[in-house]
Amino acid sequence: MSRGKPAPEQLDLSNALMEALPGYKAADGTDARNYGGTVGLPEARALFGELLGVPAAQVVVDSSASLSLMHDVIVYSLLSGVPGHAPWIAQQPITFLCPVPGYDRHFAICEARGIKMINIPMTEQGPDMDLVERLVAADASIKGMWCVPKYSNPGGVVFSDEVVRRLAAMRTAAPDFRLLWDDAYRFHHLGEEKRACASILDACAAAGNPDRAIVFASSSKISWAGSGVAALAASPANIAWWTGHSGIRSIGPDKINQLRHVRLLKDSATVEALMERHRLLLKPKFDAVLAQFERLLGKVDGVSWTRPDGGYFIDLVTPNGMAKRTVALAKEAGITLTPAGAAYPYGRDPDDSHIRIAPSFPSLDEITKAAEGIALALLTAIAE
Amino acid sequence: MSRGKPAPEQLDLSNALMEALPGYKAADGTDARNYGGTVGLPEARALFGELLGVPAAQVVVDSSASLSLMHDVIVYSLLSGVPGHAPWIAQQPITFLCPVPGYDRHFAICEARGIKMINIPMTEQGPDMDLVERLVAADASIKGMWCVPKYSNPGGVVFSDEVVRRLAAMRTAAPDFRLLWDDAYRFHHLGEEKRACASILDACAAAGNPDRAIVFASSSKISWAGSGVAALAASPANIAWWTGHSGIRSIGPDKINQLRHVRLLKDSATVEALMERHRLLLKPKFDAVLAQFERLLGKVDGVSWTRPDGGYFIDLVTPNGMAKRTVALAKEAGITLTPAGAAYPYGRDPDDSHIRIAPSFPSLDEITKAAEGIALALLTAIAE
Repeated sequence: MSRGKPAPEQLDLSNALMEALPGYKAADGTDARNYGGTVGLPEARALFGELLGVPAAQVVVDSSASLSLMHDVIVYSLLSGVPGHAPWIAQQPITFLCPVPGYDRHFAICEARGIKMINIPMTEQGPDMDLVERLVAADASIKGMWCVPKYSNPGGVVFSDEVVRRLAAMRTAAPDFRLLWDDAYRFHHLGEEKRACASILDACAAAGNPDRAIVFASSSKISWAGSGVAALAASPANIAWWTGHSGIRSIGPDKINQLRHVRLLKDSATVEALMERHRLLLKPKFDAVLAQFERLLGKVDGVSWTRPDGGYFIDLVTPNGMAKRTVALAKEAGITLTPAGAAYPYGRDPDDSHIRIAPSFPSLDEITKAAEGIALALLTAIAE
Repeated sequence: MSRGKPAPEQLDLSNALMEALPGYKAADGTDARNYGGTVGLPEARALFGELLGVPAAQVVVDSSASLSLMHDVIVYSLLSGVPGHAPWIAQQPITFLCPVPGYDRHFAICEARGIKMINIPMTEQGPDMDLVERLVAADASIKGMWCVPKYSNPGGVVFSDEVVRRLAAMRTAAPDFRLLWDDAYRFHHLGEEKRACASILDACAAAGNPDRAIVFASSSKISWAGSGVAALAASPANIAWWTGHSGIRSIGPDKINQLRHVRLLKDSATVEALMERHRLLLKPKFDAVLAQFERLLGKVDGVSWTRPDGGYFIDLVTPNGMAKRTVALAKEAGITLTPAGAAYPYGRDPDDSHIRIAPSFPSLDEITKAAEGIALALLTAIAE
């Protein structure tokens, strides 16, 4: 229950990736076995363009991990600066806004690369925009902000159209400010309703800030988590900037894996059908957790949890000061959870009140027992 | 003739990579489809350990491109420092020694990341060690040195045992000095004799500088150039340092491609047999170039060229001031060559006298005509 890993049954849905590859030529005649092609194969760019609602020319398809693309955007910005601006390392200190609770690996990149972080509370509409606007207008050291705009990790929040518009249009003291837009759960619905989120690239262009956002996506939780393909979508200026740097780092991405994925995922309709099969595997696991929480915690004061419409997590909110103790008690009962506080910069939840529940990987039977164990651990912590 | 790309017939030798994968489980039971495993699969580490003569525990198997691993070693050193030392960016300026002629993509990384470069002439034994020792002892800004120790790009030089020993043992003013040891052509023999190069990791350990060298290798010119697997070998301290950083950048490499490669490449004997088939395809192409050069340039004063025992290149040495003109004249005749000067930092060959010939990709017939054209272009340049 500690990480958002797909279950083996979900990975089985893409076992066609193990089948023989009928050929190594891309649609434009490229021999996908050889060097070259910094931007990815044309058909892979077209596929992700369709999936993300972006022209293929504004999409780069690269390695297996979108996290690596985010990391490298930060590295290139630190060492060389974004287009037309000085390197961030020449403008120290550098600060990022971090909606919380959020994704621990985003925060780990900032911490490892010497970037200060400021917590931004999440609302049901997305980050607290009054606070965000006030901070970015006043502080030129704020160069970036992490966003998981849809089915956020771990709160399951979908940014409202108004939040997207304000993020795109807000005045930033830093002219080289960037939104790192991790669209990790775009197709990862849990409910019948498929919720949508406005296009940040369109909103930024409309607001006269076309280079503000860089969008990241991958097939990791669509096909195989460890060997998918990742994509970056951005303005033409940002794409040129990215490929200028990524072309120094590599002679080109693994185009054979891109061919395999284009043949598996084909188009939006095929991806949506595949995601529906994921949903049918995941939904009962989330329901099992929610049922146990309702049964054991439904009438406990100060305890709540999210009922997400998509994504990979449930956020269990405990009374203040009880998350760590609950995780420790659960561990004694044999249940491994993400460390309390992990969803916060530096691993510090100021209220010690959030526990990230990841129901995807264990079996349905294990999930039910684990959810019961977590609820009992929390009841024990409260009783203490 | 411009880049060291394998020919389609060479890529065909590994078409077994297109066959169906019989399973996704690694030897230790790891589901290679899922997230995780920063260091690579155990069997992939064991394979590269055997190939490189290093314990598997000192090998990390990662993405498809060793160039990316080199780039990232420099990025992590710049932003965080090597183990026990301050970030290189806090010790500006940073300088690298660059044996010349050398690999243009190494030099491009330094240029893009703001690292100064100093040319080091190559001898038939490797870099001019008297000069190297004098420079590194006197200048603490010299934090690194590029080395292609075997069948160097483009000169085909194999570093002598004495050069390896001196590189490992020399006193450096910078305590955080690193040899970036790009073992790109370890198995890439052209002659009957398979030349060897001493182990830099052993030599560094013996000299009391165990953390000095980081070794890079890949299957790019063994299997498929664009979709192989890459490896990094180093001291235990450097491996811990590397995985600490790479684990921030990614949840793990593409382990499915590692499985495919372990099944294809198996062990040293299998790799050597495969490389012999590469050799039989490459040797006639190199011989064709050498024959044309001998025929047309054999008696021309001031013109020479290398006759490599391995690797991917021939270095054609013109009289001073004639390399650029020869490349331009060849281009007029329809022959694309690497720009003259590319084998030097900043693209500047101070003598304008080196042309890198890459015979691997074109067909044998094209090669013969191209080599003749290059020789005639050089004769024209001299006549002018």
